[in-house]
Amino acid sequence: MSIGDPSVSPPLLEPGATPVPATETSRRLAALQDVLAARGLDAALLVQNADLYYFSGTVQRSFLYVPAAGEATLFVRKLVERARLESPLAAVVELGDPRDLPAAVATRHGRAPARLGLELDVLPVAEFRRLERLFPAAETHDVGRDIVRLRAVKSAWEVERQRAAAALTAAVYERIPGILREGLTEAQFAGLVEAEARRLGHEGVIRMRGFNQEMFYGQLLTGVSGTAGSYLDTPLAGTGLSAAVAQGVSFRRIGRGEPVVFDFVAVREGYITDFTRMFSLGEMPAELSRAYEAALRIEAEVVAAARPGVPCRTLYETAVAAAADEGLAADFMGHGAAQVRFIGHGVGLELDELPVLAANDLELEPGMVFALEPKFVLPGLGAVGVENTWVVTEAGLEVITEAPEHIVVVGQSA
Amino acid sequence: MSIGDPSVSPPLLEPGATPVPATETSRRLAALQDVLAARGLDAALLVQNADLYYFSGTVQRSFLYVPAAGEATLFVRKLVERARLESPLAAVVELGDPRDLPAAVATRHGRAPARLGLELDVLPVAEFRRLERLFPAAETHDVGRDIVRLRAVKSAWEVERQRAAAALTAAVYERIPGILREGLTEAQFAGLVEAEARRLGHEGVIRMRGFNQEMFYGQLLTGVSGTAGSYLDTPLAGTGLSAAVAQGVSFRRIGRGEPVVFDFVAVREGYITDFTRMFSLGEMPAELSRAYEAALRIEAEVVAAARPGVPCRTLYETAVAAAADEGLAADFMGHGAAQVRFIGHGVGLELDELPVLAANDLELEPGMVFALEPKFVLPGLGAVGVENTWVVTEAGLEVITEAPEHIVVVGQSA
Repeated sequence: MSIGDPSVSPPLLEPGATPVPATETSRRLAALQDVLAARGLDAALLVQNADLYYFSGTVQRSFLYVPAAGEATLFVRKLVERARLESPLAAVVELGDPRDLPAAVATRHGRAPARLGLELDVLPVAEFRRLERLFPAAETHDVGRDIVRLRAVKSAWEVERQRAAAALTAAVYERIPGILREGLTEAQFAGLVEAEARRLGHEGVIRMRGFNQEMFYGQLLTGVSGTAGSYLDTPLAGTGLSAAVAQGVSFRRIGRGEPVVFDFVAVREGYITDFTRMFSLGEMPAELSRAYEAALRIEAEVVAAARPGVPCRTLYETAVAAAADEGLAADFMGHGAAQVRFIGHGVGLELDELPVLAANDLELEPGMVFALEPKFVLPGLGAVGVENTWVVTEAGLEVITEAPEHIVVVGQSA
Repeated sequence: MSIGDPSVSPPLLEPGATPVPATETSRRLAALQDVLAARGLDAALLVQNADLYYFSGTVQRSFLYVPAAGEATLFVRKLVERARLESPLAAVVELGDPRDLPAAVATRHGRAPARLGLELDVLPVAEFRRLERLFPAAETHDVGRDIVRLRAVKSAWEVERQRAAAALTAAVYERIPGILREGLTEAQFAGLVEAEARRLGHEGVIRMRGFNQEMFYGQLLTGVSGTAGSYLDTPLAGTGLSAAVAQGVSFRRIGRGEPVVFDFVAVREGYITDFTRMFSLGEMPAELSRAYEAALRIEAEVVAAARPGVPCRTLYETAVAAAADEGLAADFMGHGAAQVRFIGHGVGLELDELPVLAANDLELEPGMVFALEPKFVLPGLGAVGVENTWVVTEAGLEVITEAPEHIVVVGQSA
């Protein structure tokens, strides 16, 4: 028996959220099918959360079976009722037991795939072997890298979602002068900033595709905390609260004249933007202000050089050369062994997407969205830098994260 | 050149944090070596963050090479300076290029492993194949499941860390009556609660071993939000802010007389506790209060039955039978298709550890730590439940998350 009233539906959809429209999933699935056909694969079987959301509009626990031609089927293990509300796909089918998948695929798609695409870049070996046992006759191939490549180019609908994430960022940014004060610990400061982000709808979970990569809201670092490198693929990492999560805020108290790096990852409706601005309580040391001005000049130079057809390598080399011209090569994108070899990264449903602005030959295309983050780490002083999320258009770059770029000095005498 | 002073060391260690002591890593590595020897494996090569922290005290990007006998070596790609400070291991060696790993292993350990253990439960196929190419002569075997089994039994040192997480939880719990008020959205309420947790040192990142599993602080759900099931392996999930992250808080406003579920995952120095208590603004409907009393009785019954040697299955069946006796079988651990088939789960460096309190034969052992979470979902009304983190002792269970268990009614007339 049940004490409550089972006829009352649970609230499975947030009323203000925008479901992924069928026009989006159709176009995306068609693009994947083009890849499957070109590679001679019969189908792709997708399971990872970000990919599921991209191609089906839901992250309900599922197998998304995409044949090289014809309609895709979402086989849902949990929760089919919710998947049907969230996904615009026509074929959303309940699957009680994963072992029934081959039979269910045969029923809906006619035959077992001989050449099957899987997300081998993210699928753990044990999960992979379970799928291999389900389709013992299939030859498996990686489609993870193809999907990452497809997802690098955003639709106008996706960029609109990222603009919503940017609006959240801008609102949080404007609140910081009212929050930042001397003597707060970094952890306390972060908590107050994050509370504001949550109120505005930050979804918390920041998805990353790379193995072992993990991120929590970004990096709010002050003073010399900004100089602590770590395991992450980021120019700034922070001391963290312990060696267990060796990144992010510490219990260090914020002092006057220190650089305060507001490196903030926003997530709204799954879509990410990345953004960095500088604050300080009173003026920060001139070396840091000068390095920040250099970061702004490097940003402007890279933006001026970026347009469709330009390879990532050109942008990376432009930035590195500009940092050298500024006399700051040793401090650019981290110092010493903590220095990283990129100046930006794609952002979308995951924080670590293509293009990576590094020494590679991927060429910019209209619709690519990336964060460009020239930053400097000055040993003994702190870190400074600027970061915006940009979309590539036919004419060049258009900023998504709009906000003033000057250092915001809080608590100055009038 | 560098503008700052490179002789000033960055703050790589949080002064208040407790490094993993050598006594811990020695014992843990010896236990793993016993497994390797028993399985006839020459070595294990570990790379996943939680496992790295467990066996080496650091999450700096590394390969941890553990021979079946002799000293383990941590080969660090980034950041060796920090790994040397964080890890108690004697052999912490810089590795510039991962392709140099086989030569570095040969130098330090004499020969290439013929039978090599890898974390195949978490290692993505692409990473696995990179390792296979580095050690082409090695036969690879999964040691992920062995490690999970070893990690299920905590040392006194580890339980002490979990008590620190529990103390953080208790402090946040005590603040809730001062935060909870009518008309706050769930997102706003969560932000204020999480800000307090951050101030106290919550590390943010909640590690989970399961593929696609993701969690953000737990579940702060109010009223009918508690009835929304989703993709997660949890009895409660919530509406979430969009289908992209279909769990957690929504923009729903908190009303009077509604159940407020405070399901809170704390992380201090990598170690997790899980905890649930109930609040409400004014009295909640009697059906919910009665279900909550049933949850408390089920908890007491399971705790009374738990001691070393008892299989998980017994505890699970005890709880399911007790829920049926209460006339609440259909609402226990979720309702309908969202119902889950467990009543608790191990917690440690990851939220989804062993033992899983479900229909399996794993027997309790002293030192195992798990969250026990009898919960009910009443359609149309909301969710209620209690959750504590317990450690198994020779005498039975000892609670780690101490706090009163009654429903806290906020804003009653005097």
